[in-house]
Amino acid sequence: MVSTMNKELLERRYRVLGKSSPLFYDEPLQLVRGEGVWVHDADGRRFLDVYNNVPHVGHCHPRVVEALATQAATFNSHTRYLHENIVNYAERLTAKFDASLSMAMLTCTGSEANEVALRMARQHTGGQGIIVTNCGYHGNTEAVAELGLGFMPEAQTTQRVLGISPPCTYRGPAGLTEEQTADAYVAEVEQAIATFQQRGIGVAGILICPDFANEGLLFEPEGFLAKAVARVRDAGGLFIADEVQGGFGRTGRHWWSHQWSGVIPDIVTLGKPMGNGHPLAGVVARADLIEAFGEWGMYFNTFAGSPVSCAVGLAVLDVLEEENLLENAVSTGAYVAAGLRTLQDKYEIIGDVRDKGLFFAVELVEDRATKQPAAAQTSRLLNAMCEHGVLISRIGPHDNVLKMRPPMPFTREHADILLEALDDCLGEL
Amino acid sequence: MVSTMNKELLERRYRVLGKSSPLFYDEPLQLVRGEGVWVHDADGRRFLDVYNNVPHVGHCHPRVVEALATQAATFNSHTRYLHENIVNYAERLTAKFDASLSMAMLTCTGSEANEVALRMARQHTGGQGIIVTNCGYHGNTEAVAELGLGFMPEAQTTQRVLGISPPCTYRGPAGLTEEQTADAYVAEVEQAIATFQQRGIGVAGILICPDFANEGLLFEPEGFLAKAVARVRDAGGLFIADEVQGGFGRTGRHWWSHQWSGVIPDIVTLGKPMGNGHPLAGVVARADLIEAFGEWGMYFNTFAGSPVSCAVGLAVLDVLEEENLLENAVSTGAYVAAGLRTLQDKYEIIGDVRDKGLFFAVELVEDRATKQPAAAQTSRLLNAMCEHGVLISRIGPHDNVLKMRPPMPFTREHADILLEALDDCLGEL
Repeated sequence: MVSTMNKELLERRYRVLGKSSPLFYDEPLQLVRGEGVWVHDADGRRFLDVYNNVPHVGHCHPRVVEALATQAATFNSHTRYLHENIVNYAERLTAKFDASLSMAMLTCTGSEANEVALRMARQHTGGQGIIVTNCGYHGNTEAVAELGLGFMPEAQTTQRVLGISPPCTYRGPAGLTEEQTADAYVAEVEQAIATFQQRGIGVAGILICPDFANEGLLFEPEGFLAKAVARVRDAGGLFIADEVQGGFGRTGRHWWSHQWSGVIPDIVTLGKPMGNGHPLAGVVARADLIEAFGEWGMYFNTFAGSPVSCAVGLAVLDVLEEENLLENAVSTGAYVAAGLRTLQDKYEIIGDVRDKGLFFAVELVEDRATKQPAAAQTSRLLNAMCEHGVLISRIGPHDNVLKMRPPMPFTREHADILLEALDDCLGEL
Repeated sequence: MVSTMNKELLERRYRVLGKSSPLFYDEPLQLVRGEGVWVHDADGRRFLDVYNNVPHVGHCHPRVVEALATQAATFNSHTRYLHENIVNYAERLTAKFDASLSMAMLTCTGSEANEVALRMARQHTGGQGIIVTNCGYHGNTEAVAELGLGFMPEAQTTQRVLGISPPCTYRGPAGLTEEQTADAYVAEVEQAIATFQQRGIGVAGILICPDFANEGLLFEPEGFLAKAVARVRDAGGLFIADEVQGGFGRTGRHWWSHQWSGVIPDIVTLGKPMGNGHPLAGVVARADLIEAFGEWGMYFNTFAGSPVSCAVGLAVLDVLEEENLLENAVSTGAYVAAGLRTLQDKYEIIGDVRDKGLFFAVELVEDRATKQPAAAQTSRLLNAMCEHGVLISRIGPHDNVLKMRPPMPFTREHADILLEALDDCLGEL
């Protein structure tokens, strides 16, 4: 699919960014234009974007672009001067959380937000140990890389991070009730706590994405999170919810994915969808944690919380509310999920379909009984979908889960295009 | 100076951001508008900005705002699709460095850039030890906080960072030749290397701001850096130049502050002025280091290197070149420095004046012979300058150095306003 011009661009890119800078697809796409749920390549081809969650309210949303451009032309600065935007934004944002989560600290990236959360939890608890799942990903700084047990290098040697199996009702232990399944995963949390205590480093907290997004979009066995967090809190640790993927209404029913379980975190980290592509991220947490951390850590972030960033953040909240995008995530999400289950009836390779609002996971298996992951077919399917004009991706520890998270203004009309392309590509596999 | 409305805003800010989120001045300013070297507060007062280096080519530069707005309305994305902007920008950027520094890796913040540099140096060398100065600051993530020996909490306990005295010809050892002074500081580097080797953790590198900006804008004793880097390289370490403050022509004579010494770094980190306030930062380094790090660390940064960020970065380079802002930094900088030295002749409290392009440090002392820092007077002077409509700040381990780094389109007319205000405020001290 790469045109001659693109090959030249690719060579130039290799020279100045290196070959290790990752690209999607066997034949990388050169995208040049976007609006709503659509993107266009340099040859004028249009693609339905069912992958990108960063342009949360739609590519190049005019309301967000206008807010960005107007504030950038008026004033921008760090936060050591007073400005209304950051105060308005932090008030609007924290109002969407439980009353105990009343303060915000803004950063530029999700990695920085998770850094703040880790430093805050370790400072507050005096402990070092952090519990994660075995195959999550939380960012690219050293301390945060330690959390990426599946593939980040620092995670291979760290003594202060321990992983539990991703709580999974599809691939979890067979023959148990849901409560027994939950307890089996809670036992892993207890084991991690005991190990940290044996190491003499204490427990700082449990840090998870409540959607288990990188793990393959999992539903917790009911009661798992409440029990796991209770054990961690008994050991002196905190609950950090990484909402970098699931936040801002992606899952439709709630603004934040931790609300599905009803367990209130001590610290929530935010990122990707927050600024619709503008580098805006942050932490919402208990006031005592933020005050103590700010004093202890002398925290200041040059670019974060600027008038421009906060104008963008406010515009994203406006659009989510005024265009009723959470309601849309529920209704369109249910429509897509029903279509995916129809495809599951038709194609044996679809082992499981999981959905939360406008977040979908379709697990491909060689055999429904053995659940052997169909990773090669998943890769072929992604590339075929791209040829068919639909962008999706894959996730999960076995690289066999289709990952679909379209921009939020995704309608039934778009869903039909997605489902038809999936039907075609599954038929050709 | 805080109006009634500002007090209400300040209270609201305390409630959602906490009291530990830092603010400038005894009476915080509420700034609402900016253009060029001027900012305006909510009451319509105008201030000459002689502090902020982030709005590098001037507050709200129309060329930069236009590039931001146009690209944001067209397309924005991560870097896993091909796009011309990041390739064009990385080519333009790396072309301004020695040919050995041929690849770039973009991030959103200077902290992230220094994280990449540390991870890269530790991965490449197999060593852990990093040498810094005793009073630098390099960012706010955990690993980078370890470098902030003067006041960051993680730096108080780390075993893998050691500091040397900031090489200073004003406060350095008395009665030595410049070469002997350099050698005295080099001996501290040698001692740090020996300590790391005794600890069995090896040497990953020396990481310094070649302007020693946070140390008080120091000139190295000639030959210091060349010898120090040679010692570090002999021990297997790398030279990381933190150009987050001094880069992009701030010092006029060169694009990068490491060029004053002629010692070519292995890794250069970039930040603050790079995007004129847009969160744009990164690393320029040897190709082999970037390729190996990318493969090892699976490095990907969701927001960094986006078409929007790179459009902004390109516009900043355009303005720097087309408005001849480096030449202006040399000529206006010399004019300001001459004025500061005239003030030094008039006011006994000015112990030393140091300047590099449009970066100025004025060290206030109780007594020129003892050089006892005049920290309280420095604080009063800052606040008085603000009352006089001029924004400056202070730095240095003794909090007694006026820090002046205006946006680059700073002219003699602005210099006269600055010098007159300083004369008035010094007279009233």
